[in-house]
Amino acid sequence: MHFDGKLAALVGEVESRLQGFVDALDFGHSAELKRMLCYHMGWADDTGSGKRLRPALTLLSAGACGGDAAAAMPAALGVELLHNFTLIHDDIQDGSPMRHGRQTLWTRWGVAQAINAGDALFSIAQLALLGLSETCSEAAALRAAREMNEVCLRLTKGQYLDMAFETDETIDLARYLAMIGGKTAALIAYCTAMGGLAAGSDETTIARLADYGESLGMAFQIQDDYLGIWGDPAVTGKSAASDLLARKKTLPVLFGLRESGDFRQLWQVDRPSPGEITAMAGLLEACGAAAYTRVQAEDYTQRAFDDLAHLFPDGNADADALAALTGKLLHRAV
Amino acid sequence: MHFDGKLAALVGEVESRLQGFVDALDFGHSAELKRMLCYHMGWADDTGSGKRLRPALTLLSAGACGGDAAAAMPAALGVELLHNFTLIHDDIQDGSPMRHGRQTLWTRWGVAQAINAGDALFSIAQLALLGLSETCSEAAALRAAREMNEVCLRLTKGQYLDMAFETDETIDLARYLAMIGGKTAALIAYCTAMGGLAAGSDETTIARLADYGESLGMAFQIQDDYLGIWGDPAVTGKSAASDLLARKKTLPVLFGLRESGDFRQLWQVDRPSPGEITAMAGLLEACGAAAYTRVQAEDYTQRAFDDLAHLFPDGNADADALAALTGKLLHRAV
Repeated sequence: MHFDGKLAALVGEVESRLQGFVDALDFGHSAELKRMLCYHMGWADDTGSGKRLRPALTLLSAGACGGDAAAAMPAALGVELLHNFTLIHDDIQDGSPMRHGRQTLWTRWGVAQAINAGDALFSIAQLALLGLSETCSEAAALRAAREMNEVCLRLTKGQYLDMAFETDETIDLARYLAMIGGKTAALIAYCTAMGGLAAGSDETTIARLADYGESLGMAFQIQDDYLGIWGDPAVTGKSAASDLLARKKTLPVLFGLRESGDFRQLWQVDRPSPGEITAMAGLLEACGAAAYTRVQAEDYTQRAFDDLAHLFPDGNADADALAALTGKLLHRAV
Repeated sequence: MHFDGKLAALVGEVESRLQGFVDALDFGHSAELKRMLCYHMGWADDTGSGKRLRPALTLLSAGACGGDAAAAMPAALGVELLHNFTLIHDDIQDGSPMRHGRQTLWTRWGVAQAINAGDALFSIAQLALLGLSETCSEAAALRAAREMNEVCLRLTKGQYLDMAFETDETIDLARYLAMIGGKTAALIAYCTAMGGLAAGSDETTIARLADYGESLGMAFQIQDDYLGIWGDPAVTGKSAASDLLARKKTLPVLFGLRESGDFRQLWQVDRPSPGEITAMAGLLEACGAAAYTRVQAEDYTQRAFDDLAHLFPDGNADADALAALTGKLLHRAV
């Protein structure tokens, strides 16, 4: 209860600062471009916005290190805007028509204008981040900017692989882990590390915060892969084995393609029946893909909690909130 | 002769530094993404690359202010990489199949991968630019990064307008000038200003360098609009009145749509005959659109040369080269 209230307050503050930052930008003759960005961010109507988990991780990391939320705020705004830039381009690349219960930007304004709106948000993210030069120091802002662009480059490498996988016949597990490392974990690691940077923590602490974020991101994605096949439809809100239906090459599928000839054969079926989907899930369990995926997720989850225990052995309100948020994301009681 | 040799040497140095910077980046499992970038930059085969005019403007501006080319090099690399990021996304947005005598990225690798490659190059541009913290100072790098993202935001506003114009019935001249200001002049102004920044020039000089670049960019674009209708095909390499054939809403066309009812009527014709194209060009001349466009281009050209004269009253080798390059770009003897 206490944790949920704290998180809600934090997210509320981030939301109003995000709106304030974008609102202060002058778009002149291009006011419609600003409307596109506000629509994407969820400020145009009553449909949902994102959960703003990334800035919450930054602010809680800063607080847990004894830093001030105000000092870390430019980094929090930067990571959320950056994340949203990637969503705009992702939606085009995946051809996704809907997000947060409303049409995606490209569906409503066309691909060309949506590419441009994403580019605008990328620049705005960097401008927000550079506010660290006022709340922290020039050196901190410069380092944050350099690392943000390194993370973006890693994101594009992960995104490249993700799209290449759609047509690749064989994908080894190392390339798959590199892909989700780039697509999901790199930005989460950046979020937590920047909290430490803004708090003025030492290098060892910042590096461990990055490790924590990386493990959290990996655990979250691999768990998502597990739930995409074996999740309870009542909990996930998706149909059973939805990732098999969508033919997504997730970690258990790649494991199964490598280990089980029977699964490989069934995977070739063009439009599998519900019975064949159930059979595929069974073959994945039988060949050890379910156990392998669970162990991988559990391993990264354990690493994330170990990092937290090392970082904050004596605990504090923000460190406890960080642990609670980690537990919530990884569906685990802390 | 002497100027051409100097420019060629400068461009050669930039080219090898650009290649070195991209080559040093580790793409791991995503080596194909690097190949896409090298292909776009013109390093994959013998077809042409860009003219690298923007980095040349940065280095000559730095030199003219008494600065060192090595100190300004990170800015020179940054502006060229940034320009190329915009080209990759522009080609998708415009549906252009060819650039520099080869297929565009999206034609060869698909829209989704090309969007991603552009995003990668945007990050790489910022990483290159931040090298200013080693060659100049942390403060200079930070300012250059902030201003680069402000310029990018202005680019997206210009790009928004450019795409919106395709379907807009009426476009006033102020919005058109705002569009080319964003699409062309903003980045040129950034190139010249960053030369001054890297040279450690005072604020008045940096501001005047930006004015010079802005005027140069505006003059160049408006002259391009003029030549797109009245240019000599033997010189431009395009057919006579090619912009009228392509139905581009350039400055003389917008002037004609406002001033001439006869032109407005002919502009509505779906597939104009060669005779109708000639008639349109004639109507534009008759209503004053040609003269208006010439005067605008001449006005910005004059401002660019005035800025140069104020900046470097005593001249120097780099200032003279800058004037020669300006004259070459604006087809004017200096």
